[in-house]
Amino acid sequence: MIMNADTVICAVSTPAGQGGIAVIRVSGPGAIAICNEVFCPAKKGKTLSKQKPGTVNFGQIVKDENLIDEVLMTVFHQPNSYTGEDLVEISCHGSLFIQQEILKLLLEKGCHLAKPGEFTQRAFLNGKMDLSQAEAVADVIASSSAASHRLALNQMRGGFSKELKHLRSQLLQFVSLIELELDFGEEDVEFADRSQLINLSDEIYEIISRLTNSFSFGNVLKNGVPVVIVGETNAGKSTLLNLLLNEDKAIVSDIHGTTRDAIEDIISINGIAFRFIDTAGIRSTTDEVERMSINRTFRKIDQASIIIWMIDITHFDTGIEYVADKIIPKTRYKKLIIVFNKIDKISQEEQQILEEEFLPQVTSDRIFLSAKYKKNTEELEKALLKAANLPEIGDNDVIVTNLRHYEALKKASAAIKRVKEGLKLNLSGDFLSQDIRECMHYLGEITGEITNDEVLGEIFGRFCIGK
Amino acid sequence: MIMNADTVICAVSTPAGQGGIAVIRVSGPGAIAICNEVFCPAKKGKTLSKQKPGTVNFGQIVKDENLIDEVLMTVFHQPNSYTGEDLVEISCHGSLFIQQEILKLLLEKGCHLAKPGEFTQRAFLNGKMDLSQAEAVADVIASSSAASHRLALNQMRGGFSKELKHLRSQLLQFVSLIELELDFGEEDVEFADRSQLINLSDEIYEIISRLTNSFSFGNVLKNGVPVVIVGETNAGKSTLLNLLLNEDKAIVSDIHGTTRDAIEDIISINGIAFRFIDTAGIRSTTDEVERMSINRTFRKIDQASIIIWMIDITHFDTGIEYVADKIIPKTRYKKLIIVFNKIDKISQEEQQILEEEFLPQVTSDRIFLSAKYKKNTEELEKALLKAANLPEIGDNDVIVTNLRHYEALKKASAAIKRVKEGLKLNLSGDFLSQDIRECMHYLGEITGEITNDEVLGEIFGRFCIGK
Repeated sequence: MIMNADTVICAVSTPAGQGGIAVIRVSGPGAIAICNEVFCPAKKGKTLSKQKPGTVNFGQIVKDENLIDEVLMTVFHQPNSYTGEDLVEISCHGSLFIQQEILKLLLEKGCHLAKPGEFTQRAFLNGKMDLSQAEAVADVIASSSAASHRLALNQMRGGFSKELKHLRSQLLQFVSLIELELDFGEEDVEFADRSQLINLSDEIYEIISRLTNSFSFGNVLKNGVPVVIVGETNAGKSTLLNLLLNEDKAIVSDIHGTTRDAIEDIISINGIAFRFIDTAGIRSTTDEVERMSINRTFRKIDQASIIIWMIDITHFDTGIEYVADKIIPKTRYKKLIIVFNKIDKISQEEQQILEEEFLPQVTSDRIFLSAKYKKNTEELEKALLKAANLPEIGDNDVIVTNLRHYEALKKASAAIKRVKEGLKLNLSGDFLSQDIRECMHYLGEITGEITNDEVLGEIFGRFCIGK
Repeated sequence: MIMNADTVICAVSTPAGQGGIAVIRVSGPGAIAICNEVFCPAKKGKTLSKQKPGTVNFGQIVKDENLIDEVLMTVFHQPNSYTGEDLVEISCHGSLFIQQEILKLLLEKGCHLAKPGEFTQRAFLNGKMDLSQAEAVADVIASSSAASHRLALNQMRGGFSKELKHLRSQLLQFVSLIELELDFGEEDVEFADRSQLINLSDEIYEIISRLTNSFSFGNVLKNGVPVVIVGETNAGKSTLLNLLLNEDKAIVSDIHGTTRDAIEDIISINGIAFRFIDTAGIRSTTDEVERMSINRTFRKIDQASIIIWMIDITHFDTGIEYVADKIIPKTRYKKLIIVFNKIDKISQEEQQILEEEFLPQVTSDRIFLSAKYKKNTEELEKALLKAANLPEIGDNDVIVTNLRHYEALKKASAAIKRVKEGLKLNLSGDFLSQDIRECMHYLGEITGEITNDEVLGEIFGRFCIGK
């Protein structure tokens, strides 16, 4: 067991930068005493440690008789705090200078600057949450679509942990019976009914498989459905992308008063994120450099699960065949959506003909739209949702979204599969026991019952400072 | 009097972006009821409106049975809140998605998105602070040096307001006496001893002049001492500037975990901000385009109060005289610091000679340093502080930093000056009264006793959203 840290840590927990207010968190044994040292309460004689937990105290932070700021300090007592330690939240004016001066003062008084994720790491070490829940905290903060947000919240609140706990308790029951037999090894007793064990191992294998399989769309929900738009140069690819992006972003920036650069090419449709992979335009060319760039585009198609093939209706030439030859073979394991752009330029009849006669052997959705005049883009959005083909997720569904968990589950799955086979082959209990223990080990890695500093360092190093 | 708004407003008050936590503020009549509607307390049956003010309540925000986040809600009752209205602070995870979803939900429940500075504007309208204090809130948030921070805090806490209140009460006493005489107009009485009035008007004029004069360095303290570095191309100007900037920035970014782009060319030395004006290198040239750029540099010198003239010791040629001819005439009302760079290249004797023989008629500090080897830069910092020649500011000193206040004070000063002259000329009471009333009017504009929507719109429009 890793020991709980006995230092007091501090960090700005609100987003970096200037704003109306900022919150500085101070956590660890002695945190309240340190904050009390720098705090001049508005009500003279008030002592922070004597205040009721979860109450806001108004006062000043003063350094060498100079006022740094008027602040609100909220005190939480261990173990009833985020970290499970004594914790103070200092709410100050959101000036960079003030944030910095308060941190400097806290460092002078013996605090340490928190490392990324250190507050959450302490929450984990103090048993406030298991490791998969702690990891979900970072996912909650980073999630940018309704679906990824729901999965992360569910995991943070312990949905996944509960499932794993259930599995481990079944495995424990299993291995206990087997190991009991081993204790009586020479007497050749069988406490565990073999057919019952076979059922149990089948059941556990099923559950683990279901979790492992959920990763394929859990990962997609978390990171976005990868989509690629291909088509000839000037087919209107970037107009379409900007249109989709702007419609989505406008809502965000209207409300938030800021643009979200980080999600540059991610569009959320009905709560599902679609991640657009940037590609160059395609055309039949003899220019060697351009050919290389086009080949790169075709390779990028491999990363996508949905291909939007964009065709300029006014510009049918031999290039179409060239592109078709390149794209069609790629669509076997992917969804293809054919988008005819610039429909304002053709008649209904011409559209009808196109619909019936253009590559009739290729089964795919065909959307007729005008990116320029913003016509029928909602049809494309519907087609994207249909192509993504993601299941509805209930509040209690457990979906694996984390690669680390997926890899541990695969190892656990391999171990329990060996147990199943061992049971069929009537292998002796010590072999079975070893594999069951291995399965439990990998599940324990997910929840953090089995862990080491390196793994923790890697997990929490990806957090932001202040969380 | 402008009426208090009866809507409920909401906004993210922490800096824009993603972080550990974010705080959303909701203020107005009914704010607590609205928040209660979207809040599922962890302790069933808890009602926000029945909670003690200033206590933190843990629970969930749920929308259409979907969990949005686990949050802390802190309730403040009017008039004991920042705005003077019922106010709720929602502390949620710092995900952009969550911030946005909570705001959307609040808007659905009837809240309005707060305009920039609207929380502070309401605090002003509800009498929680006067206008000069409200303006100081934005200055506190924007201040990036110890000096500007102290001035802004002092103003926010009412130092300036107190001084103005004192002035107004003196003026009121003054004008009451005069106007009393007017009531008895026909009887030719004199309630106010004229010599006493002359003393009082002198005193008021003195105080207003002191305040008006303080703006010259109040403005500099707030916005930074303008400094220009001039010198021939390759004298090492940018190396020096980067050196000064990095030394300052390193401290900031170490602690804050972020770089402060906004203060790109502002350096804080001993708590005083120096603002570096960007210029091109100077050299004698016949190229017309380059000559224009150099002339622009010389014009920029006019904006500075300190000129650093940087000379490459290893490169004395006729160019020096050209630069000297351009710079020296500009230094009459400015401070000049001559910096000899690359001192590692010359001997002590050579340095001695330079010190004595280089432009002996020019009085200025001479600093010998090496920007490349970071030698003697602290000498330059000392010289900058000396050249800035700013007075020590005590906690209770009242300094004007705001152009709007300065302009109102100048008008108030002109009015009281007319009173002084009127008294000397023995003008009748109605003339005096008019001028005293005008002086009071302009002082009232500063504190917001006299105001209008346009002025308020302009002042609060410069705030960030959420404050």
